Amino acid sequence: MSRVLIRNVSVLVVPEQGECRVDEAQDIHVQDDRIVAITPTGGLAAPGAPGTREPLFEVIDGDGLLAVPGLVNSHTHSPMVMMRGAAEDLAIEDWFNRRIWPMEVNLTAERVRVGARLACAEMLLGGVTTFVDHYFHADQIAAAAIESGIRADLAPTFFSSAGQDAIDAAFEMTRDLSTRHPRITASLGPHATYTVTDEDLRRTADRADGRRIHLHAAETVDQTRASVEKHGVTPIQVLERTGVLEAGALIAHGCGIREEDLPILQRYADRTTVASCPKVYLKLAMGEVTPIKGLRSAGVDVGVGTDGAAVHNTLDVWEAIRMVALTQKQREHDAEWMTLSDTLRLATRGSAAAAGLTDQIGVLEPGRQADIALVDLSAPHNQPIHDPRAALVYSVRASDVVTVLVAGQVVVRDRQLTTMDLTEVLAEAKDLAHTLVDLSQGGAVQHYAP
Amino acid sequence: MSRVLIRNVSVLVVPEQGECRVDEAQDIHVQDDRIVAITPTGGLAAPGAPGTREPLFEVIDGDGLLAVPGLVNSHTHSPMVMMRGAAEDLAIEDWFNRRIWPMEVNLTAERVRVGARLACAEMLLGGVTTFVDHYFHADQIAAAAIESGIRADLAPTFFSSAGQDAIDAAFEMTRDLSTRHPRITASLGPHATYTVTDEDLRRTADRADGRRIHLHAAETVDQTRASVEKHGVTPIQVLERTGVLEAGALIAHGCGIREEDLPILQRYADRTTVASCPKVYLKLAMGEVTPIKGLRSAGVDVGVGTDGAAVHNTLDVWEAIRMVALTQKQREHDAEWMTLSDTLRLATRGSAAAAGLTDQIGVLEPGRQADIALVDLSAPHNQPIHDPRAALVYSVRASDVVTVLVAGQVVVRDRQLTTMDLTEVLAEAKDLAHTLVDLSQGGAVQHYAP
Repeated sequence: MSRVLIRNVSVLVVPEQGECRVDEAQDIHVQDDRIVAITPTGGLAAPGAPGTREPLFEVIDGDGLLAVPGLVNSHTHSPMVMMRGAAEDLAIEDWFNRRIWPMEVNLTAERVRVGARLACAEMLLGGVTTFVDHYFHADQIAAAAIESGIRADLAPTFFSSAGQDAIDAAFEMTRDLSTRHPRITASLGPHATYTVTDEDLRRTADRADGRRIHLHAAETVDQTRASVEKHGVTPIQVLERTGVLEAGALIAHGCGIREEDLPILQRYADRTTVASCPKVYLKLAMGEVTPIKGLRSAGVDVGVGTDGAAVHNTLDVWEAIRMVALTQKQREHDAEWMTLSDTLRLATRGSAAAAGLTDQIGVLEPGRQADIALVDLSAPHNQPIHDPRAALVYSVRASDVVTVLVAGQVVVRDRQLTTMDLTEVLAEAKDLAHTLVDLSQGGAVQHYAP
Repeated sequence: MSRVLIRNVSVLVVPEQGECRVDEAQDIHVQDDRIVAITPTGGLAAPGAPGTREPLFEVIDGDGLLAVPGLVNSHTHSPMVMMRGAAEDLAIEDWFNRRIWPMEVNLTAERVRVGARLACAEMLLGGVTTFVDHYFHADQIAAAAIESGIRADLAPTFFSSAGQDAIDAAFEMTRDLSTRHPRITASLGPHATYTVTDEDLRRTADRADGRRIHLHAAETVDQTRASVEKHGVTPIQVLERTGVLEAGALIAHGCGIREEDLPILQRYADRTTVASCPKVYLKLAMGEVTPIKGLRSAGVDVGVGTDGAAVHNTLDVWEAIRMVALTQKQREHDAEWMTLSDTLRLATRGSAAAAGLTDQIGVLEPGRQADIALVDLSAPHNQPIHDPRAALVYSVRASDVVTVLVAGQVVVRDRQLTTMDLTEVLAEAKDLAHTLVDLSQGGAVQHYAP
């Protein structure tokens, strides 16, 4: 049995409704992979203390630190860190057709593994304890996640153009990954409503067997318009009639979700969620951001993500959280919407739901997984602190994260990874980076024409 | 005579037109306050080297670092760091009338000095070497700037409601600050077109005597509409007919600048600039951002700023630069506009112009002031690097800045301030923070009703 005590720490409390708050001077008691108690400092005898018989494995001094639920990156393509900065100043069509999909001809298992290791390092150092991934060679991503100590939900990506054998292989990998490690879950990963046929979506839903379907849909207003013009239905209607919503979906982006789609999504709100990655929508000049207000009114959980670093340039979930708050206020022309508490709830409970891990992660309370980030708010850019919630949403940097636990394991201690040799991870990525962005091969894994 | 040699560093080159680039393996030679040469590493004998007779004061190893022009915060109210996080989730009316202007009743010289010291610390540690300020007790801000080693242009703020003596005192302070220190320049600081009468704006322009007028104007579309309804003219037309544009202005925000204002601004483009702080426009749900494309087409220089931390929550100019790129692409529905090069040019040459320091700062070349930030891009969130310009705009963090020079003086070395005791600066700010946000006094320094 492993034990960790985080002593004398402030704790972010995120209730289901109402205001978030910070409780000061708390002890967080961790046993194996779970939080077993949170008590006022010194109120409960520490394991290993005189008079108790339990061995104490580690005490972390939380004095001056704020404990927050480990962040969740609710939609990403982690190995794409290898293409960071290689596809700039392009609209979505050119981004896909002139850069990303031609580059992805270069994917190999090794290159994906190297990229995933770098991604896990970046995320853990920034306080991200779970990521929800959608990419090729997902077994390599699983290996990197297991090695690094991070938690992941992995969806092996497929296009209909790849043929039935490739799709079957993706299904098989989802099944295989589901049983590999307690920190790994797996989802089905059709790429999008515009790259996977309705027939294949239907087959995916039929074979879901309790697993979620993670896919891109209604990414832009233009995609929705094209879908209506070509097929007479919105992408969300496609997801309903193919059974994807019935099976349970994580919809990436959804900026093109229409008012008329909301009642549909409401019917499946117990099993269907949306991930929002707004930095990307601005950078690609997509014209809209996710209609989070409407989705929340329909009872649909929304999480926060970065998307891949080939467009977001970082896997910094703090940045993504801030962008959600800012762009939602802008979208609704309402500075009193997406408050500090709304934003923190979305980033914690919402993202946990998007990861398919409601009740497991997302909140610091007894019984939940011990996925915890300790944040140091003492640097000048956060001081003085009139409201620590405002610091978390509007001034904190990923570099303010000092210690991170996932499933009770200390994976970052004093800003250093404990699980991987960062120098080696960076060197490998640097060595292989040029091979990923090489356009001399010709061809592309897909063509964007929604 | 003081000498610094930054050896074997990469250098960001920002031409007036066209693509920015990074030159690798350069030596930057600094003498006293200026850059005297930038040469391929080892190409020019270092001062102090055998065979030369000049004494060498300091060599900085630039290996693995990228030298960029010290950042410029082209519009801020630095002491408002003392109100960081104290006015959240409010629209602009309530932000002013329920929080900020009632809080500013509490301003004292000491509190402003303490806030300005903290602000200078935050900015220098993040690579900001110049800030353009607009606030009360500007002599205290000057003292903090001089002490910290940062460069500043300071505009003592005044409202017409404060009466003629207060306005005269503000004019007097501008004159006084102008001669205080080589790193300090001063501008005239009427608050805004809606808080200063046309008569007082005219008097300001008449007494400018070659100094610039830094003020808020056309901050929102609503302000412009109100101005047209009440007075029959846009705020920019007010600035023209009162002689402010003729004298030379730095216009903060300008989100409400109309198409018809552009030909007016074009006439004064040799002396009138605009500062854009887009995080604030989203956070306050102002509905628009600065029309930078139109302004640039009219030949008007635009700089990047944070505004005060009571709304921006940081004085992080990297964050402000990124928000400019993202929101401009969004505004123009054009992912190919505000490219990496456009953005970096705005943040360097544009901000230097906004600071009234064209030809002095903003570019790394011989003859310019030695205001230099050395950035370490080796951390996972920037790696691998396919394009260092993309790293600067979309992935770098202020915490990646390791060394900073202002006017040839090393003010940050290995992420530590050399000029101030940071512990003391933070402790003072913490001690006084509650006094700034106390609303029990009643009253307000002004009322927002544009």
